[in-house]
Amino acid sequence: MAVNINDFLSRNAKNMKSSPIRDLLSVVNQPGVISFAGGFPNPETFPISDLRKMIDEVLDEQGRKVLQYGGTDGNHELREEIAKRYRAQGINVTKDNIIITTASQQAIDLTARLFIDPGDAVICGLPSYLGALQAFSACQAMMVGIKKDEELEDTVKTLIERGKKPKFIYAIPDFQNPSGVTMDMDQRKYVVEVARKYDLIIVEDSPYREIRFEGKAQTMLTSLAPERTILLGTFSKTFLPGFRLGWVLAPVEIIAKYNVAKQSADLCSPPFNQAVAAKYMQSGLFEKNLKKTIELYRHKRDLMLECLEKEMPEGVSWTRPSGGLFLFITLPEGYDAKELFHLAIRENVAFVIGEAFYCDGTGKNTLRVNFSFMDDEGITEGVKRLGKAIRELYKKGRK
Amino acid sequence: MAVNINDFLSRNAKNMKSSPIRDLLSVVNQPGVISFAGGFPNPETFPISDLRKMIDEVLDEQGRKVLQYGGTDGNHELREEIAKRYRAQGINVTKDNIIITTASQQAIDLTARLFIDPGDAVICGLPSYLGALQAFSACQAMMVGIKKDEELEDTVKTLIERGKKPKFIYAIPDFQNPSGVTMDMDQRKYVVEVARKYDLIIVEDSPYREIRFEGKAQTMLTSLAPERTILLGTFSKTFLPGFRLGWVLAPVEIIAKYNVAKQSADLCSPPFNQAVAAKYMQSGLFEKNLKKTIELYRHKRDLMLECLEKEMPEGVSWTRPSGGLFLFITLPEGYDAKELFHLAIRENVAFVIGEAFYCDGTGKNTLRVNFSFMDDEGITEGVKRLGKAIRELYKKGRK
Repeated sequence: MAVNINDFLSRNAKNMKSSPIRDLLSVVNQPGVISFAGGFPNPETFPISDLRKMIDEVLDEQGRKVLQYGGTDGNHELREEIAKRYRAQGINVTKDNIIITTASQQAIDLTARLFIDPGDAVICGLPSYLGALQAFSACQAMMVGIKKDEELEDTVKTLIERGKKPKFIYAIPDFQNPSGVTMDMDQRKYVVEVARKYDLIIVEDSPYREIRFEGKAQTMLTSLAPERTILLGTFSKTFLPGFRLGWVLAPVEIIAKYNVAKQSADLCSPPFNQAVAAKYMQSGLFEKNLKKTIELYRHKRDLMLECLEKEMPEGVSWTRPSGGLFLFITLPEGYDAKELFHLAIRENVAFVIGEAFYCDGTGKNTLRVNFSFMDDEGITEGVKRLGKAIRELYKKGRK
Repeated sequence: MAVNINDFLSRNAKNMKSSPIRDLLSVVNQPGVISFAGGFPNPETFPISDLRKMIDEVLDEQGRKVLQYGGTDGNHELREEIAKRYRAQGINVTKDNIIITTASQQAIDLTARLFIDPGDAVICGLPSYLGALQAFSACQAMMVGIKKDEELEDTVKTLIERGKKPKFIYAIPDFQNPSGVTMDMDQRKYVVEVARKYDLIIVEDSPYREIRFEGKAQTMLTSLAPERTILLGTFSKTFLPGFRLGWVLAPVEIIAKYNVAKQSADLCSPPFNQAVAAKYMQSGLFEKNLKKTIELYRHKRDLMLECLEKEMPEGVSWTRPSGGLFLFITLPEGYDAKELFHLAIRENVAFVIGEAFYCDGTGKNTLRVNFSFMDDEGITEGVKRLGKAIRELYKKGRK
């Protein structure tokens, strides 16, 4: 006499899709499989012994406070430390511009809930971060993908004419997930210009910005248009993901809305974890560890590019990211990365099918590859296996 | 040239209300104020030195794993430990019936998002837990309050006739927040009978059940109707709130829906915190500490009842909870707890205005008082001040 759960679900719930990445994990985590699929940081970067020291100090000095409920906006010291790092980039903010979230997935989710009514238009990249597409889709957004930046203004104009003024432009300007690509200054200025002209909000998702291997940092969108940009940040790639800490940085009247939304979402993010992160930043260890992380990932990127050069058959191309955790591979037109996935799994190597990142169902000949997680032997061997799988795919011919 | 944020908000966001409790905290946390307002556990119950040991062990044995991303469903050992405790009550569940949430506020929020479309009816108590009312309201639920259990069937029938079959019955059967009242076996059987007759889901919110001072535990609703009950649990009152850990227990096909919803909400709750909680439970320390917590709170409840007996002027009544963290005070008809609040703050004592817990705007002459947080002197002095404030209110006369 079980209930038929589908009779009870909300329309939003019917729109919620399980992540193809998370669903793949059971296949991908089989022993022997070299996985380039996840977006995992390398555990070598986790500062375990420093962390233990920080935890001891926090428990000694403020155990009773940090094991209690905390304010919804988050730990003041942590917010101040985060604000400081943005001020160092010339962004004029204080802790009052910041709310701590249960990592950046919650920041994305709260953004979706605050702004999206069913059918509302949201502009995103083609491709774009899957977790954001999921959260927007769970609020029944109409996702409008932009292949090339210069399409932005025309797309916005057309939407407005149809009475569908976009709720926001969702962008990942630095070392984008999944493509690894970074927007240059002209592109940034253009996005801001369009946003100002049509009075649009910009959501700048910025999880990878600090993992930069070379060159100078580009100006943030939030620097160019602080009045209309909502910046999403996270400690998952620069410190560790297991504490689940991220933030939103925005004008105070927007942060006030996030505060109310977060109250009913989970009251507050773990005060204990926040206090440890604050101490870690205050101690200077954060910067030191970040430098080591960047070096490690630069090395891994270099190694992977080298292996790709050696192992990829003709016709395959890939991006050369200057930071972040991912690169994006494109097969010749007519080949399907989904078919490749099955061949690759037989060779014991995994990746994410690029199609998952395209809200318009295109991108069938693309795949995302992570280079941060795997050890060096894994990268070398995995790319070799991937090359073999692609050659097998070639043999089967185009569809 | 700031954006006008209200032009962009979703309808759900416009329905989000800030908690009057959280908003009061700035007044309430002034030095010198004795606050019975929060729902805070007593920090004396936080097992700081045991926690440090557990943390050390977790970092030693599984640091790289628990600082990484985790599965959305949560730590397997922790889910198994939770399942074990329900099995000890004769509830036939495994870890597969459980998903870990970012404390029970997230469990409530996910419930709201999974089931509530704008305008959907949800049945709750009069009074009922404010955080749940907030989360339901953020999904634009139509909250239908029940003053007395026996009204349930008629209310359900009327709603169904109007084409508004309730999405679920929200109940807090044990030591309810805010009233402190526990449903007896007849009441429980009746709720289950109605739910079965009309094919309704029951949401059993159970944060206080384990904080029982005396008597025998009542059978859980999930025991009586496992096929249609979604149970929400939390470590916030039995272990500590600062780790933000709770859970949902339900049939596996329902848990699957929570999994998808949680993926886009925050991917996973902190794996580090979960691993520490799992170890704490496995070690037997959880049970030991829970016993101490119960003793402490029983003492505080007794002390508060004693003080109320002594200090309350005639006409004031209150509940005598056999567990939990709260008791509920009722002023004579015609007196307003909101007016009392201002008088009380002048006397440096605070509580929560009961009206906040009534979805129908009634309950104006009620107040919620917490007895778990304050030290003994605070309870004695605070109740004295409260008595004084009520006598001042009496002098001002009924409205």
